[in-house]
Amino acid sequence: MNKVEKKVLDCINIDEMIGYICELISIPSMTGDEKEAQDNVAAKLESIGMKVDRWSLDLDELSKHPDYSIEVDRKEGYGVVGVTGKDEGKSLILNGHIDVVAAGEESNWDYPPWQGVVKDGKVMGRGSVDMKGGLACAIYAVKAIRDAGVKLKGRVIIESVVGEEDGGIGALACVLRGYKADGAIIMEPTELKVAPAQAGALCFRITVHGLSAHACVREEGVSALEKFIPIHSALMELENRRNKRVDDPLYANFKLPIPLNMGKVQTGNWPSTVPETLLAEGRYGIEVDEDIESAQKEFTDALDAVVQADPWLREHPPKMEWWGGQFKPASIPVSDPIVETVVSAYRDTTGSSPVLEGVTYGSDMRHLVNVGDTPTVLFGPGDVRDSHKPNEAVLIEDLGTTVRTLALSILRFCGH
Amino acid sequence: MNKVEKKVLDCINIDEMIGYICELISIPSMTGDEKEAQDNVAAKLESIGMKVDRWSLDLDELSKHPDYSIEVDRKEGYGVVGVTGKDEGKSLILNGHIDVVAAGEESNWDYPPWQGVVKDGKVMGRGSVDMKGGLACAIYAVKAIRDAGVKLKGRVIIESVVGEEDGGIGALACVLRGYKADGAIIMEPTELKVAPAQAGALCFRITVHGLSAHACVREEGVSALEKFIPIHSALMELENRRNKRVDDPLYANFKLPIPLNMGKVQTGNWPSTVPETLLAEGRYGIEVDEDIESAQKEFTDALDAVVQADPWLREHPPKMEWWGGQFKPASIPVSDPIVETVVSAYRDTTGSSPVLEGVTYGSDMRHLVNVGDTPTVLFGPGDVRDSHKPNEAVLIEDLGTTVRTLALSILRFCGH
Repeated sequence: MNKVEKKVLDCINIDEMIGYICELISIPSMTGDEKEAQDNVAAKLESIGMKVDRWSLDLDELSKHPDYSIEVDRKEGYGVVGVTGKDEGKSLILNGHIDVVAAGEESNWDYPPWQGVVKDGKVMGRGSVDMKGGLACAIYAVKAIRDAGVKLKGRVIIESVVGEEDGGIGALACVLRGYKADGAIIMEPTELKVAPAQAGALCFRITVHGLSAHACVREEGVSALEKFIPIHSALMELENRRNKRVDDPLYANFKLPIPLNMGKVQTGNWPSTVPETLLAEGRYGIEVDEDIESAQKEFTDALDAVVQADPWLREHPPKMEWWGGQFKPASIPVSDPIVETVVSAYRDTTGSSPVLEGVTYGSDMRHLVNVGDTPTVLFGPGDVRDSHKPNEAVLIEDLGTTVRTLALSILRFCGH
Repeated sequence: MNKVEKKVLDCINIDEMIGYICELISIPSMTGDEKEAQDNVAAKLESIGMKVDRWSLDLDELSKHPDYSIEVDRKEGYGVVGVTGKDEGKSLILNGHIDVVAAGEESNWDYPPWQGVVKDGKVMGRGSVDMKGGLACAIYAVKAIRDAGVKLKGRVIIESVVGEEDGGIGALACVLRGYKADGAIIMEPTELKVAPAQAGALCFRITVHGLSAHACVREEGVSALEKFIPIHSALMELENRRNKRVDDPLYANFKLPIPLNMGKVQTGNWPSTVPETLLAEGRYGIEVDEDIESAQKEFTDALDAVVQADPWLREHPPKMEWWGGQFKPASIPVSDPIVETVVSAYRDTTGSSPVLEGVTYGSDMRHLVNVGDTPTVLFGPGDVRDSHKPNEAVLIEDLGTTVRTLALSILRFCGH
């Protein structure tokens, strides 16, 4: 680490950053409703000397893009991008999503979800892990560089994006607005691992048709639930079969690198009526290098085998939709300069080498890599297991490691 | 058939009765919301010279009764009873429920559900079968006796009751208000069979607990759906076992005399989250002469066997509730005078003997027989298969047979 780097690290103000994370948590920016939080980030980026581009997303236009996918009923959305530096070195995007999932039953939380509580070496609250913590680290890394008086050769671009949780409309909008770079880091919770690969995840919806009847003559009806059960079994077998053949070393530590999750099932509306329609929604994990259409065909083939084996289903085939979030996989070579930069920065920050590993979840990486041609890694504080759950919390120590690693990565990738 | 009987039958005005059924259908008296329809029936009963008792149900008081069961969130309820005749002969109750189930998707109906359409020899609309048609038959049978100038020796009591669909609060209230008799007919849709027995039906709710996790690490969670599937299998086996041993001749023609129906299942709320809680609601058929507690134990034993075989379920046992409609079974001897009366009336009306058969559904019969000590049969127009469905419709011919059979039954049972 050179003098400039040391000076920058000294300028990082962890306490102030924690205060800002709590400020962001206190704005409940659930997917589709991110305006107030985006305005806050825009002001913050301006306050650290970045040139801010804030725009209203053209939802109609975006919906025409083949990589558009969405679940919520979105009325509006805003892009917020801060830029600093010059055109004399390599450019780097730091991307974080501002949208969070709902808090669920607040009684399941030990702390208020929409407040930001600092306790036991952690910051707690909805979004602390996924991923206002990581976004704040990017902002405070850039701020430290500015506070240290260092001038960057290349451009640093901070993207605060909406709609990651339901398909990545915000990241897609940034790419389509022209934000591409020589490298990118997305501060998703990787437990400080460096992830040059993300599996895909395609959401699906299956509607199974039965035949209603009064329970007192239930044998004259056809229960959509009973017809669904062999479909569920077949899909669980499909998951098992697919996961057994994954041999990517970046996924060697995962028991299920590409899980198939049946997340929601609803059928029937009265105890005394045979359930006529069953709705099942889930997500289907996709290998990093897998062809999407082949993977989809493998799924629909498994479904079709059940349908063909059952006379009722054959006559009344279930409706199958690829619906909602369609997260294609993405990856870059582990030899890419952005990987090497983050690895070296992490090593110099912590004294040890980071784990290089893929993630099993979808993220905005696919838009940056596949649409924007920007080599991207995921690297950030916190554990994805703690996201989407009550008592979401991130370790302050990991926030510190992240902001320092990001500051060094910027200095080294963009030059100064 | 004697002269008086013939004169009474001649006084039955089928066309006017059909008009009145349509009038009742046009008042959407869904369970819990029957006030307008009850006011209409009260006025109708007065118009045919009956003394009308109309009262507001004391819901708090009723809720203390061991046979109270309810599903909807009821704010109010009204009892409507019409009485005529004297104390010089046997008394007869004619009971019909005014509440109906929801219409569901109106687009699935070929005719408006809340209108009453007369076409192709049928009356169509929600409640035509279950059971405004039958209730109107009782009213027009009494009206014909009055129009014929016949004086009855015994009392005839017409009960228009609320809340049959969710547990029979209205029939229970009538019994507790003192309405008992030497016999009763409930005009439920029996396809004109005479039913001296009704199976029981106990609604249940099972809550299965899992463990939430992000789909990307789904193997770290426990899917409540996966834990439910063996429970469902065990209950289907239980249904099979129980039905095989039914040997009641009144149920010889039923493939499933005591069906177990899983009517509603809901789990999860997001495709990418392992579903944490599953709610299953259904109804459990009970044999006519079965001990309720033993039947409940057989159910919970089957559930418990699955729980004990699964380490997760053993540690996190599902919550089991007998919830909502608790329809105990009921029966009377086939030799009871009310059975003989209806059989003879039907024979003289149609020229052929009626089928004597139990029904597999629960009804208000249990309150009249078990709480009110009133020997009761079910006899009415229409097929229960057409109830609770779109395009509910009853044959006008069957309405005619019913009103004539009821008129003769009243004359013969009460005397004149």
